[in-house]
Amino acid sequence: MNLENYVLGKWIAGDGDGKQLYDATSGDVVAVASSKGLDFADILKYGREVGNPVLRKMTFQERGRMLKALALHLMTIKDKFYELSYATGATKADSWVDIEGGIGNLFAYSSLRRQFPDESFYVDGEAVPLSKTGSFIGHHIMVPKEGVAIHINAYNFPIWGMLEKIAVNLLAGMPAVVKPATVTSFLTELMVREIVKSGILPEGSLQLICGSAHGILDHAQSQDVVTFTGSATTGRMLKSTPQILQEAVPFNMEADSLNSSILGPDVEPGSPEFDLFIKEVQREMTTKCGQKCTAIRRVIVPKDILEDVQIALANRLAKTTVGDPRLEGVRMGALAGKTQLKEVREKVNELLNSSSLVYGDLENVTAEGNTKNGAFMSPIILRNDDPFKNLGSHEIEAFGPVSTIMPYDTLDDAIALSKMGKGSLVCSIATYNDKDAKEFVLGAASHHGRILVLNRDCARESTGHGSPMPMLVHGGPGRAGGGEEMGGKRGVMHYMQRTSIQGSPTTLSAITNVYQNGGKQTEGDIHPFRKYFENLKIGDTEITAKHTVTEADITNFANVSGDNFYAHVDGTSLEGTIFEQRVAHGYFVLSKAAGLFVSPKKGPVLLNYGIEECRFTKPVYPGMTIGVKLTVKQKIEQEKRDEEDIAKGIVKFLVDVYDETGETVAIATILTMVKKENQEGS
Amino acid sequence: MNLENYVLGKWIAGDGDGKQLYDATSGDVVAVASSKGLDFADILKYGREVGNPVLRKMTFQERGRMLKALALHLMTIKDKFYELSYATGATKADSWVDIEGGIGNLFAYSSLRRQFPDESFYVDGEAVPLSKTGSFIGHHIMVPKEGVAIHINAYNFPIWGMLEKIAVNLLAGMPAVVKPATVTSFLTELMVREIVKSGILPEGSLQLICGSAHGILDHAQSQDVVTFTGSATTGRMLKSTPQILQEAVPFNMEADSLNSSILGPDVEPGSPEFDLFIKEVQREMTTKCGQKCTAIRRVIVPKDILEDVQIALANRLAKTTVGDPRLEGVRMGALAGKTQLKEVREKVNELLNSSSLVYGDLENVTAEGNTKNGAFMSPIILRNDDPFKNLGSHEIEAFGPVSTIMPYDTLDDAIALSKMGKGSLVCSIATYNDKDAKEFVLGAASHHGRILVLNRDCARESTGHGSPMPMLVHGGPGRAGGGEEMGGKRGVMHYMQRTSIQGSPTTLSAITNVYQNGGKQTEGDIHPFRKYFENLKIGDTEITAKHTVTEADITNFANVSGDNFYAHVDGTSLEGTIFEQRVAHGYFVLSKAAGLFVSPKKGPVLLNYGIEECRFTKPVYPGMTIGVKLTVKQKIEQEKRDEEDIAKGIVKFLVDVYDETGETVAIATILTMVKKENQEGS
Repeated sequence: MNLENYVLGKWIAGDGDGKQLYDATSGDVVAVASSKGLDFADILKYGREVGNPVLRKMTFQERGRMLKALALHLMTIKDKFYELSYATGATKADSWVDIEGGIGNLFAYSSLRRQFPDESFYVDGEAVPLSKTGSFIGHHIMVPKEGVAIHINAYNFPIWGMLEKIAVNLLAGMPAVVKPATVTSFLTELMVREIVKSGILPEGSLQLICGSAHGILDHAQSQDVVTFTGSATTGRMLKSTPQILQEAVPFNMEADSLNSSILGPDVEPGSPEFDLFIKEVQREMTTKCGQKCTAIRRVIVPKDILEDVQIALANRLAKTTVGDPRLEGVRMGALAGKTQLKEVREKVNELLNSSSLVYGDLENVTAEGNTKNGAFMSPIILRNDDPFKNLGSHEIEAFGPVSTIMPYDTLDDAIALSKMGKGSLVCSIATYNDKDAKEFVLGAASHHGRILVLNRDCARESTGHGSPMPMLVHGGPGRAGGGEEMGGKRGVMHYMQRTSIQGSPTTLSAITNVYQNGGKQTEGDIHPFRKYFENLKIGDTEITAKHTVTEADITNFANVSGDNFYAHVDGTSLEGTIFEQRVAHGYFVLSKAAGLFVSPKKGPVLLNYGIEECRFTKPVYPGMTIGVKLTVKQKIEQEKRDEEDIAKGIVKFLVDVYDETGETVAIATILTMVKKENQEGS
Repeated sequence: MNLENYVLGKWIAGDGDGKQLYDATSGDVVAVASSKGLDFADILKYGREVGNPVLRKMTFQERGRMLKALALHLMTIKDKFYELSYATGATKADSWVDIEGGIGNLFAYSSLRRQFPDESFYVDGEAVPLSKTGSFIGHHIMVPKEGVAIHINAYNFPIWGMLEKIAVNLLAGMPAVVKPATVTSFLTELMVREIVKSGILPEGSLQLICGSAHGILDHAQSQDVVTFTGSATTGRMLKSTPQILQEAVPFNMEADSLNSSILGPDVEPGSPEFDLFIKEVQREMTTKCGQKCTAIRRVIVPKDILEDVQIALANRLAKTTVGDPRLEGVRMGALAGKTQLKEVREKVNELLNSSSLVYGDLENVTAEGNTKNGAFMSPIILRNDDPFKNLGSHEIEAFGPVSTIMPYDTLDDAIALSKMGKGSLVCSIATYNDKDAKEFVLGAASHHGRILVLNRDCARESTGHGSPMPMLVHGGPGRAGGGEEMGGKRGVMHYMQRTSIQGSPTTLSAITNVYQNGGKQTEGDIHPFRKYFENLKIGDTEITAKHTVTEADITNFANVSGDNFYAHVDGTSLEGTIFEQRVAHGYFVLSKAAGLFVSPKKGPVLLNYGIEECRFTKPVYPGMTIGVKLTVKQKIEQEKRDEEDIAKGIVKFLVDVYDETGETVAIATILTMVKKENQEGS
């Protein structure tokens, strides 16, 4: 099978003979990949000029719905990918992570659209006051970068590796060029074929280079973003490409690291956490045949139970069937290929300078099925008894089913050992002592991108040491590359430019489409509650009638609510408080404000949905007179659940309750659900 | 004067002769700087091992108060800095930006402590659900990096350049090594002397290298952070230091850029925005003699009024007195030195290939005072009539009082021209048309770190095109270096490691010290309202008595609040709504919840402060029975305003209102102010 590259809107085979790619289990050639003759400069330009303008104009809601459609479509044809995935050496369980884990990322980023406005841009954080009287303020907006995301991916997750990244750049409004590792690119190619065929993504959003992409970064520009997943050596080389430096192209690197798992000082053999720990280490060693950038390489355990751990782990590994992943009962498949097998053996030999081999066989493996030409190997446990002196375990990574057990004395030592990896993607600790958990996490966090605390309460639902989650940041400092990807909104922002904006509150209201305090308030003839969603404008304001608060109000409110807090009901109790008289309940002020601003007759307003950022800023006493300014602050589109659903949106109103001196006594943002006039729309 | 370096806790003069530094106005030698013999590896190690452990253990509140003390101290002796600052060529107004602007940054970051907890770490964003039943969740924490911040600064702001950066790393809990540009390091040295003398910062927090720091980055490590402000060429060279790549050291670069200012298409000569624009351009050209990384280099104006702009700007510049900055009436001082003067002239000559000189004289200048040996020059206006073809204006920067005027036809053209700078720190537009402002900002934002919209409403309080503000992000894409500094909390996070944490809600509550939904709720014998601030524990919970809601409740609440919204009071109006009966007011549910959870007798709870994140999740009808779980969610320390003030803190309670089926009908976070038992404390 000659793989093709999807570039410039076409499937193009590379010139020449190409590179032969092998089935990891049989050793047979499964595909040939070549990118010879492709013009990388043209490909990037195509992404920028064809894909980018379409995506950047779409709103977050549109992009999110597009991701959802894509995810739903891919789920219906997932069996195709499972079938081909065996050729990468993956078991069905391994493939689940790659395929459904990858599609899950599309779903997750699709849902994330709800945290973004129905705009092509995002308003970041809070407004910043910059002046005394408030006529000049600042804020931050983010717009999609105008380039293309260039993703250079690792061979271990040919599908997840692509989808976890493009889910994010597509939601942000940027197109991608994906360069999967050539060795398993046949699986990526199959998925891209299906994606292209579906027609769900706008043309130019996704291009694929199966063969070598050597030199592509020489054409990167400042509005592009490069991500790299793979070995630290390659990553660093790419990061120092002169063009990348010249153009200050963001380069996000996620490199293999010497991740560790710690058994807490409180844990005894036979306890739930002991068993969970052994199970976790075994699973991380054998999933994907240990070819995971997040796999546990260093197993750090209390000195006095090191033997117990070693025995328990060996027992568990002994029960792990290795073999052709297509066979029932096989739990660990093959490495990606013979090259990888050779490399792992070399690294284990290096590791043996600082450790001894206590489980497994480096040369031989008992494997089920016809495996003699495949890249199979036995799980290997090494043991390093003096890990503060024998440093190899913290420096050398064997990217296969290989881990090193090492002892520690105190929790501080465990923290120190975990940090000796000089920066890792992930670390875990099994403990049922939350004090230890806290001490460990705060002590070790500086060197880790993610830390999992495993115990009996969370184990049943734990997603495990090895799994990066879409809404959590993935990436680690130092050796792990210093990058950050995913993490929910945080990931999306890597593909956008953050820009400070400054001006009058009225101007910034216009730009952000969110009312900014101090901006122009427009009083009209029609009460905002009488307007449909579409007809409400940011800044529309109702200035209500006023109400003089009485003692009876307070008493009645205390009665109806049952809130008899002394400051409201007992005028003799106020010594030493900030109150000068019986003070009205904050909730009364808010409720009375509603009484003033609500237009009671049936109309477009469907319901009261919630309150945000409410502050009671000044005590309200009997005799004071309050009024309300009700201002349309923000409009949030809502999708219809189905055809039957009412077309509606959420309107945030700023409620400013002020007294007879004009001073604000309470301020809040309230959320109401408002019907649309046009019931045919989304 | 032989400058000294402050390193390893001592003032040390460099070996050998050192570099002579000159008074920019008189040409006299003012100081000699040398760093020969310093061991940079030792200096960085000292920061990591002496400064870092102390700072990282302090809480944000302690670090913030330290910044405030430092700022207050420096203000009392500011005259010293003003006096010496003249030798850099700066006028009094220029020095104000450098000195008081710099100290202002300390104040601003001191105040920012209120957005951080009284902890050494920060809890970032919202918890992330990771499981169906909620037994496994995720979150993010940030801890200070364990290294040292290495700041390599520019010569134009010897004080601000240091303070704007260290304010941020100190609040984050990291120490700094500052390398000011040698040419004006005498002023930085004076300030560091005063800082060290004050004893306000812990030893090791701040080191200073006045002479060359060539090679220092060869010793940077993965937990360090490097920032660079200066020329793009130098910055790129430093960023590609092999050690920086090897260790994935974060490198934040802020380079000079070809910033632009646009006169809006709506603006006519004689209008307020026209005058504001001219004034702004003139000010940016002449402040610091145009030596600002944010100065306006490109003046982009509607074609048909280009002449008007040119004449008005020339008139204004003609009235700008150049000369010895010590003299009354002088508005523009000298460049930093003769080297800089020579360079600016060279660059202007290059620019003349694409533009013509329409104002000023490159060789001669009329200057007040004894200026013949100083680095004085005349402001220069260039004009490029075909800026889409003659590209020099978008490529070549003369770092002095030099700007190029260029015409545009349409707003789209103006956007395109502004982007031809390939990434700028800042851009501004003068317009009183908010539609144009929006279109411009959204169109140009991808290429700019900051955009100011100037008009008559904000001009009086505007901080101007050229001033980076502490709470707004400073930095721009592409040519501007791709960095981001300051920006309030965002800046602080550059000096911290973000780590995803995963575990049970109870474990994550313990780690974050914030109650996480689903975490253990501990019911005690004492109502939380009866406990002092110190004695409340995260997770303390009160489960209240219950209340069956009646029609009378709704009617009474409508009466006391005046909120007669149809769904509450008119049972015949509900057709087509989601309501099945008259529904209780959301505010009633919240008020009644308070009635249930409040412990009314006078006690430690001082007042009700506000509400956050309240959602009404299920309609409450007459006959339904509600109860409340009130849980201590978070405790926020408050500082005493003065000795007399009550010692107290803010307690956030999670209010979960549920019905007889156990389903939540309303959820909110409420804020109460709670007295401390110990009134002697802070």
